[in-house]
Amino acid sequence: MKIAIVGYGNLGRGVEAALTAAPDMTAVGIFTRRDPKGVQSAYGVPVYHMDALADMADGIDVVINCGGSATDLPTSTPALAEKFHVIDSFDTHANILAHRANVDKAARKGGKVAIISVGWDPGMFSVNRLYAQSILPNSKAYTFWGTGVSQGHSDAIRRIEGVADARQYTVPVEDAVARVRAGEKPDFKAADMHERVCYVALKQGADAAKVEQAIVTMPNYFAPYKTTVHFVSLEELHRDHAGLPHGGKVIVSGNAATGSAHTIEYALTLESNPDFTGSVLVAFARAAYRLGQRGEVGCKTAFDIVPIYLSPESPEELYAHLL
Amino acid sequence: MKIAIVGYGNLGRGVEAALTAAPDMTAVGIFTRRDPKGVQSAYGVPVYHMDALADMADGIDVVINCGGSATDLPTSTPALAEKFHVIDSFDTHANILAHRANVDKAARKGGKVAIISVGWDPGMFSVNRLYAQSILPNSKAYTFWGTGVSQGHSDAIRRIEGVADARQYTVPVEDAVARVRAGEKPDFKAADMHERVCYVALKQGADAAKVEQAIVTMPNYFAPYKTTVHFVSLEELHRDHAGLPHGGKVIVSGNAATGSAHTIEYALTLESNPDFTGSVLVAFARAAYRLGQRGEVGCKTAFDIVPIYLSPESPEELYAHLL
Repeated sequence: MKIAIVGYGNLGRGVEAALTAAPDMTAVGIFTRRDPKGVQSAYGVPVYHMDALADMADGIDVVINCGGSATDLPTSTPALAEKFHVIDSFDTHANILAHRANVDKAARKGGKVAIISVGWDPGMFSVNRLYAQSILPNSKAYTFWGTGVSQGHSDAIRRIEGVADARQYTVPVEDAVARVRAGEKPDFKAADMHERVCYVALKQGADAAKVEQAIVTMPNYFAPYKTTVHFVSLEELHRDHAGLPHGGKVIVSGNAATGSAHTIEYALTLESNPDFTGSVLVAFARAAYRLGQRGEVGCKTAFDIVPIYLSPESPEELYAHLL
Repeated sequence: MKIAIVGYGNLGRGVEAALTAAPDMTAVGIFTRRDPKGVQSAYGVPVYHMDALADMADGIDVVINCGGSATDLPTSTPALAEKFHVIDSFDTHANILAHRANVDKAARKGGKVAIISVGWDPGMFSVNRLYAQSILPNSKAYTFWGTGVSQGHSDAIRRIEGVADARQYTVPVEDAVARVRAGEKPDFKAADMHERVCYVALKQGADAAKVEQAIVTMPNYFAPYKTTVHFVSLEELHRDHAGLPHGGKVIVSGNAATGSAHTIEYALTLESNPDFTGSVLVAFARAAYRLGQRGEVGCKTAFDIVPIYLSPESPEELYAHLL
């Protein structure tokens, strides 16, 4: 399968790395809106301007769209779906239905398959919520994120006057996790489940107390949560907090009709959020290709994909060794 | 959907309970090879002799076959698959390919859908091994079982002379779990991953030392493992060890091509093994019905089922609220 990578930020790099581990796939090109001369592939994949994509359609089986959810994917995935089998990681939960409708219309028009909102949340966490709640209809599902870097919260701190750079970790409240695992089915407010730990490097002459106050009182982002602010030097921040680890868990706690209690937990510990998300996208790109080969069209999600389509191994091998 | 339960042991009871929680399904009958007069449904479902099943085919959408894997399912599921959409929990891993071939032939002959080997292992554990290894091809998968009652090991103790009754718990070795979670990717022998804890009630006059020796030296079952034997009274055994709790975890530890380390863990804590397995069977019976409605035929496994088919909710609700 010949795969095109559209967009070459952290996620595009994660997809590129994941493709090198796929025995049945080749990255045929990285497509960027920047000047291709200024973009260096980590694995020697040729880099083209986005304008070249349409002309290369014959040599491309699936496009992995690595743009951002806020402003890029809502328009770029429908546009791509008219001409390519395409997959994205659209993650604005509130707008998934609208995005799905737009992509579905475009994919049907072009006779293509699209898979949207693939990654770990939405994506693998969603699939696990679905399996668990289908098995245990009388249950409650809890999603904990972290410990991991939230880019949105880090950016929010960076916008405060006097901040040179910052990194925010979302941390699950261990006592809340323990109560859910114990089957208590508690009703939580958001702040009961997560706390926020911030590492902040100040600009010269900035007032630490004022910055801390601006962080902990910021509505929605920090005010509702227990928030801890650590001031560190810029060197320390870049040395100790350069990675993008993340993860989390979906815990579903429920009862059978007899009353017996059951807990289903799916947990991810990820050293690199974009590497893992890229690996998920590559596995689902394989499924998009296979669905396309079968003549299916329209927009799918992780809910709609037969698990066996994700693996490079043959069904017979999988039935024999993995079932 | 009208569901027939074939077989009414622990698993049949678990399926019956799970059906009461399914808004879109009704148990139309329990079918037994025993005298139906001697079988009492826990929820008022009518009980029939197996001989009545064929005549009632028009009122049955899916048969859930709750027989045992050792001698019953290998013949009964193919026989049922010629006349009904059918689902079973066949769990003899070494024979799954042969069972699948037999069931597939019968289901195709009858124009029916069969789903085999549904439960938690094989079943949900299998699906999680497949997802995780598709996402992380450069990884190792570890399956830990327990803490939970192993019926096979309990039965093996009961067959020892002088034993009145016994219960064996399979217990994962916590240090082994910790090493896997830490990404060490160790090479384990079976005995490194699990230990065995036995509660044994003796017959009057039996020699405890002799029984203990017979247990800990029993080949395959106990000899390779760290095994602990507790002698208890029959009353204590039946009071404190009457349940059938089980569970376990699939942990997949791997690296992206960049080297970044990732761990995917799926863990079940089940107060009642048959209640949970019954709940899984009911969710997949819903998928069997839907595949049948689409005109699909042949033998499927959990690998081949689109997750969204497992839920009673509409796709639109699921995309909007669970993705």
